[in-house]
Amino acid sequence: MNAPHSAAAARPFHEVGAGLAEQFAATRSLTEALAAPLSESDATIQSMEDASPAKWHLAHVTWFWETFLLRDNLEGYTLYDEDWPFVFNSYYEAEGERIARFSRGLLSRPTVAQILDWRAHVDEAMQPLLDREELRPLIELGFAHEQQHQELLLTDIKHALSRNPLGAAMWDGAPSAREGTLGKRGWWKHPGGIALIGHDTGDTEAGFAFDCEGPRHRTLLEPFALADTLVTNGEWEEFVADGGYTNPALWLSDGWAWVNGNDVASPDYWREDEHFTLQGWQARDPDAPVTHISYFEADAFATWAGARLPTEFEWEAIARGQHADTAPAHDPAGGNQLDHAGPVTPLGTDALFGDCWQFTGSAYLPYPRFQPAKGAVGEYNGKFMSGQFVLKGASCATVRGHSRASYRNFFYPHQRWQFTGLRLAKDI
Amino acid sequence: MNAPHSAAAARPFHEVGAGLAEQFAATRSLTEALAAPLSESDATIQSMEDASPAKWHLAHVTWFWETFLLRDNLEGYTLYDEDWPFVFNSYYEAEGERIARFSRGLLSRPTVAQILDWRAHVDEAMQPLLDREELRPLIELGFAHEQQHQELLLTDIKHALSRNPLGAAMWDGAPSAREGTLGKRGWWKHPGGIALIGHDTGDTEAGFAFDCEGPRHRTLLEPFALADTLVTNGEWEEFVADGGYTNPALWLSDGWAWVNGNDVASPDYWREDEHFTLQGWQARDPDAPVTHISYFEADAFATWAGARLPTEFEWEAIARGQHADTAPAHDPAGGNQLDHAGPVTPLGTDALFGDCWQFTGSAYLPYPRFQPAKGAVGEYNGKFMSGQFVLKGASCATVRGHSRASYRNFFYPHQRWQFTGLRLAKDI
Amino acid sequence: MNAPHSAAAARPFHEVGAGLAEQFAATRSLTEALAAPLSESDATIQSMEDASPAKWHLAHVTWFWETFLLRDNLEGYTLYDEDWPFVFNSYYEAEGERIARFSRGLLSRPTVAQILDWRAHVDEAMQPLLDREELRPLIELGFAHEQQHQELLLTDIKHALSRNPLGAAMWDGAPSAREGTLGKRGWWKHPGGIALIGHDTGDTEAGFAFDCEGPRHRTLLEPFALADTLVTNGEWEEFVADGGYTNPALWLSDGWAWVNGNDVASPDYWREDEHFTLQGWQARDPDAPVTHISYFEADAFATWAGARLPTEFEWEAIARGQHADTAPAHDPAGGNQLDHAGPVTPLGTDALFGDCWQFTGSAYLPYPRFQPAKGAVGEYNGKFMSGQFVLKGASCATVRGHSRASYRNFFYPHQRWQFTGLRLAKDI
Amino acid sequence: MNAPHSAAAARPFHEVGAGLAEQFAATRSLTEALAAPLSESDATIQSMEDASPAKWHLAHVTWFWETFLLRDNLEGYTLYDEDWPFVFNSYYEAEGERIARFSRGLLSRPTVAQILDWRAHVDEAMQPLLDREELRPLIELGFAHEQQHQELLLTDIKHALSRNPLGAAMWDGAPSAREGTLGKRGWWKHPGGIALIGHDTGDTEAGFAFDCEGPRHRTLLEPFALADTLVTNGEWEEFVADGGYTNPALWLSDGWAWVNGNDVASPDYWREDEHFTLQGWQARDPDAPVTHISYFEADAFATWAGARLPTEFEWEAIARGQHADTAPAHDPAGGNQLDHAGPVTPLGTDALFGDCWQFTGSAYLPYPRFQPAKGAVGEYNGKFMSGQFVLKGASCATVRGHSRASYRNFFYPHQRWQFTGLRLAKDI
Repeated sequence: MNAPHSAAAARPFHEVGAGLAEQFAATRSLTEALAAPLSESDATIQSMEDASPAKWHLAHVTWFWETFLLRDNLEGYTLYDEDWPFVFNSYYEAEGERIARFSRGLLSRPTVAQILDWRAHVDEAMQPLLDREELRPLIELGFAHEQQHQELLLTDIKHALSRNPLGAAMWDGAPSAREGTLGKRGWWKHPGGIALIGHDTGDTEAGFAFDCEGPRHRTLLEPFALADTLVTNGEWEEFVADGGYTNPALWLSDGWAWVNGNDVASPDYWREDEHFTLQGWQARDPDAPVTHISYFEADAFATWAGARLPTEFEWEAIARGQHADTAPAHDPAGGNQLDHAGPVTPLGTDALFGDCWQFTGSAYLPYPRFQPAKGAVGEYNGKFMSGQFVLKGASCATVRGHSRASYRNFFYPHQRWQFTGLRLAKDI
Repeated sequence: MNAPHSAAAARPFHEVGAGLAEQFAATRSLTEALAAPLSESDATIQSMEDASPAKWHLAHVTWFWETFLLRDNLEGYTLYDEDWPFVFNSYYEAEGERIARFSRGLLSRPTVAQILDWRAHVDEAMQPLLDREELRPLIELGFAHEQQHQELLLTDIKHALSRNPLGAAMWDGAPSAREGTLGKRGWWKHPGGIALIGHDTGDTEAGFAFDCEGPRHRTLLEPFALADTLVTNGEWEEFVADGGYTNPALWLSDGWAWVNGNDVASPDYWREDEHFTLQGWQARDPDAPVTHISYFEADAFATWAGARLPTEFEWEAIARGQHADTAPAHDPAGGNQLDHAGPVTPLGTDALFGDCWQFTGSAYLPYPRFQPAKGAVGEYNGKFMSGQFVLKGASCATVRGHSRASYRNFFYPHQRWQFTGLRLAKDI
Repeated sequence: MNAPHSAAAARPFHEVGAGLAEQFAATRSLTEALAAPLSESDATIQSMEDASPAKWHLAHVTWFWETFLLRDNLEGYTLYDEDWPFVFNSYYEAEGERIARFSRGLLSRPTVAQILDWRAHVDEAMQPLLDREELRPLIELGFAHEQQHQELLLTDIKHALSRNPLGAAMWDGAPSAREGTLGKRGWWKHPGGIALIGHDTGDTEAGFAFDCEGPRHRTLLEPFALADTLVTNGEWEEFVADGGYTNPALWLSDGWAWVNGNDVASPDYWREDEHFTLQGWQARDPDAPVTHISYFEADAFATWAGARLPTEFEWEAIARGQHADTAPAHDPAGGNQLDHAGPVTPLGTDALFGDCWQFTGSAYLPYPRFQPAKGAVGEYNGKFMSGQFVLKGASCATVRGHSRASYRNFFYPHQRWQFTGLRLAKDI
Repeated sequence: MNAPHSAAAARPFHEVGAGLAEQFAATRSLTEALAAPLSESDATIQSMEDASPAKWHLAHVTWFWETFLLRDNLEGYTLYDEDWPFVFNSYYEAEGERIARFSRGLLSRPTVAQILDWRAHVDEAMQPLLDREELRPLIELGFAHEQQHQELLLTDIKHALSRNPLGAAMWDGAPSAREGTLGKRGWWKHPGGIALIGHDTGDTEAGFAFDCEGPRHRTLLEPFALADTLVTNGEWEEFVADGGYTNPALWLSDGWAWVNGNDVASPDYWREDEHFTLQGWQARDPDAPVTHISYFEADAFATWAGARLPTEFEWEAIARGQHADTAPAHDPAGGNQLDHAGPVTPLGTDALFGDCWQFTGSAYLPYPRFQPAKGAVGEYNGKFMSGQFVLKGASCATVRGHSRASYRNFFYPHQRWQFTGLRLAKDI
């Protein structure tokens, strides 16, 4: 693959400042840098319906810019190829028919090179729009959207490469060393009471957030404590050794059916004392956070551990520093998150954010008085509000600067190809 | 089938008083009265995995009494047939292996007559336990359990009979006449604030409730209004006529996939201007509440109507009379509910309870500090807390006296073989 | 269930002589006698799509008489119930739409009693037609059709009862004693040459046969030998013990996929040293013929034994006595076949016919110059001529007198709920 | 992709003479020439379980040479990569476990370049074996095997490219012009009698054939006639226009289920008056042979046309010139077959061979006294002898020189991604 167009753009996203043009360049070039180690065929394959080819991600984010920014806002713009929206629209019903999701892996054409040409064309065409302040919300949505696909590109290709019996790595290299020593688990305590939850959609200084993160509203918390460390691989090995996957008393009914229907006996990507990473098969670090677990597994582990999952409200209250012991808010840009294209591994840090998305016991539902955005971009979040659970934080594959305290990630309870883990909570 | 053993027992459950012996007789005889119109083969068939044969319900509730009361609490009791637990256990993992759910419809043996003999045997054996006050909680759980299966017996046989192309009724007779005239829709308003939600598990006077209904806890409500009438068949016909089932903008993403994957174009049991009832195919009453809709349909309708579903907390606050206009609490034993074996039809009344279970937008999740009961009966509720939505109220097939303000019924968002309907809510 | 209408009719079919009226009475009453031990619910259940409820068999054969004889040939006849053809047509496209095959088990209505009333009505109405010689071919087709369903009734209810975890028998009683002693296996030898195969459709004295059994035609055989005994349970146990089900070299590719996809490790209905019979679970007789095997299993066994399956032509040549050692033709009415309602078990005899249908290695395809019959009855055989294999002989559940040398039974290579077994052949 | 290693090797296979070394070079280089127009990602995708990626074909045939020739016959040879047999074995159980068939499309690694290196390595290593006359049978099997995969490479990539909504061609160019004018349909007549069928496995001069083509044996034919032209697109359009796909009377029962279960309404790759070809979407030539039909469709068409399919024996008798009017044998190397890498299209010629494989009504079963070859190569044919039908001739994608009169191609009755068509037969 081609190198990213601009070396200057390699600065981590959260450091490039508030200029839309710089942020645009940083975002676009990171996507290409992430795909750079992939061969044409690596970028084409699709290993399951939940995942998309890397090539498709490269194109889909470009379709987003071309559709919602260029087509809708740039006078006289004509589509680069009028057949491509059919193949690169993801799920926007208002934008018409599209290729079946499980057929994305058949797209040997257009090639990566053709898509990179399209990207360059769109990047060029976008320049005049990056000065138009009234488009800022939509442009910031475009950044957030492309960042989400950067993470998906990594988790999707990880899944695909893992299915290759020959072993296949995206990057070389041993895992990075952890910074600092992890201590014993402690607990951040919260006395309960009314907490302010969600993004303040009326505050123009509050920065970008997705529609589903608001409106800000009050919620009532009971006293609780949240663990100050993530659950580790070593702890999970104890759970396995103690018969965690064979004891129905620990599991939700749907979870028990999932375990037995899919012969699940460990987190995904585990074999013996190794796990599959974007750097290939590697020894598991017992002190690193466990990842690639489903909600069902997270819930069963918490039950086994005599604890529970936090609610999304509890987690956010801790993140915002709204708790009794006057601890400050946690830094959403802290911990092990993605700064540039290169090895991606959960390590374990003292931060609340980073390493892995953390399951909460909260269903992904609308906040009081939630209204989806108007038009096709209104399909971004609201229509997914059934059957999924909220995850908080950020993972080692999340672009630093992308997440925040009010961020609501969401997945079905059986899904686990993301860097998903857990942080225990308990009543006090 | 045999007649119910005791004519005296035909008094409606909620009128028989607090004596366990009387309640036991009333409960057991109602089950048999409900099954009485069914032939041996009606009672044997199973039309889908969600539903069970009527014969199986007759037996399963008896297994519950025999297992958790007689076996565990009556000295010297020996099982009536030691092979039957394998076929009549529903889902209690702690009670061992059991027949696959979808194979219940193959149980031509034992016959209904054999099961009625077992019922009589267990009823007789139960008598000495009905004086033991320390067993009251477990016995009341047995009543509630058998009442749930009374409702399921009706909805399951309705589904099975509906699949018979020859038409097949359980009872003769036109629908009952509605009492009183239904007015135009008004709204019960609530100013918001802290509401006390759930059953007070610490209050010994509070009566029976399932474990999932507690603990009682505070929750914060925003101002809202709840409709004082259910959505009707006539209103639903307008939704259909307006393209409700063909407009993706109205639907949750999973709902839209469900509509298209199952060619859904109306509530279940509709054909032209008729619907299937336990009294066979009958003309639909446009003023009667719509029933047999899924959560997906309820949500799409509310969106179409410019309203939304209430949360379970809002609904309960109205039920308890915790609202501004000093309206009293609603009577959980009011409205169109089941009093005795005979025609079952939604009619429409002014009551909050009755006619149909009402979807809320709340996921079925544990209340703060919820702990499942110990032992096998702890599998009753907690393990189902993923992927389902809460319904409130009571239906025309719910035994009067069974439900209450804190009652939480729950189903998956695609299920609709229960008498399910909706009552709109809105922000104010 | 009611008793069969006429005790006189209990004479075995092949002894009642050529009178249509007597044959009709014998056929109709045997069907009812076979169903007599079944409860209403036994007669209603359906355990897989390949099988039908006993009640449905009772009705379907009656539909055949009513449709093709009464409706089409009796002036002024009106249908007993005009909705019933929809539920009791099996697969005749020319006769219109019909209930989905897998939904036959939901027909709790009409009841067995209602169907017996219909049967009596049709039997009465048929009387004047039984004198009309021009209808003889169609009436004889009706006998053959009903006899096929008598066998299916037995094999279908066997499958259904076997799925009941409580064990369930249709008749009491130990297996009958075998007549005579089985000797060591010998071989009937055939020198090869031109054989006349198939029913002589032009010979009016030749008696009834299905259209697919003709036209008679010449075929060329190589020298071969056919075993004079069926393969036994004891021999099959050796095959199992020798790893027969775990050695892919013995299996057809599709067979190996079937074994592994369905965890097949023995004939159907085996557990330890027992097998399920219409008389319940019983000890297996090692000297009795193995039954309930698929084509895949028969082929694998033959490969293991260093032999092969005969072709249908070889088998028929032996049956007709067209071989070198001047042995006479075998008696199609000999061996262990069905004479009356009562216990049904493979025993082992010296006869070529009886005990079990015998797999051949011949695909079920049209004979040269085959033409299906005109009209709906032309759908009887020809349209099934892809993907199935021919079986010859007759089983312990076949009405004696039903089969003949040219008879071609046929099933898919994975099916084994019939009394299917094998007789080895080899090249010489 | 790289160019084929040797331009000299571009001579058509059937002209290179009997030298193993020349044939080897021609075969190997043609495979690479066929894959040359494909991008890395074209060569990687897999569009259904029946089809394999082009890259996999390149590798699998190489695995065949390495395994059965080099490993088993070249002293001291070590495998190029010991992990590759797991991914490039197709179905040889004796050669151990292998990747699931439907996962071949996930093999982004090894790359095409790596596989071409392997091919070069194996080609080099093979040289000393090409002089060893005792290996001739195995080497000729290797040629035949690789030629089969050349055809599969073309039909598999055609299927994959057809699923790309953007349209995708392998080669440019309009279809070639037909040579000569097609006349009206005539019939080759055969008087019946004993025909010698199959390859003479005992004749050392007879040349290579697969084991399933023998032993040569006598078969008895009835008088018949075989059409001297293939059925055309134009004729098929008449069939469609006449309701061919909506009239159950024309179809086998399994075929009718297949039509309705898959919404089949035309041959594969048709849309309006175009069809998809390896040269992209093109106008259909009404005079060209219809292709991409299933056995079910071929049989229904023949029924509609008042004719039937030939048996494989009839077809072979005509091919060998064993018929009354003293016509000579047909040339197996005649007609429209594959000579070199380039556009592939059915055209229509006067030849018996070429354009498309022709369905027969014969099931693919063993000939009398057939014995599979010993060892793993014995899995080549015999284990597929259930459920499939024989096709005769050769297609426009078959390497000229590959087929012969005794050749037996075989597919399941629903498959149609090969160039499959039909030639009518009738009784006379």
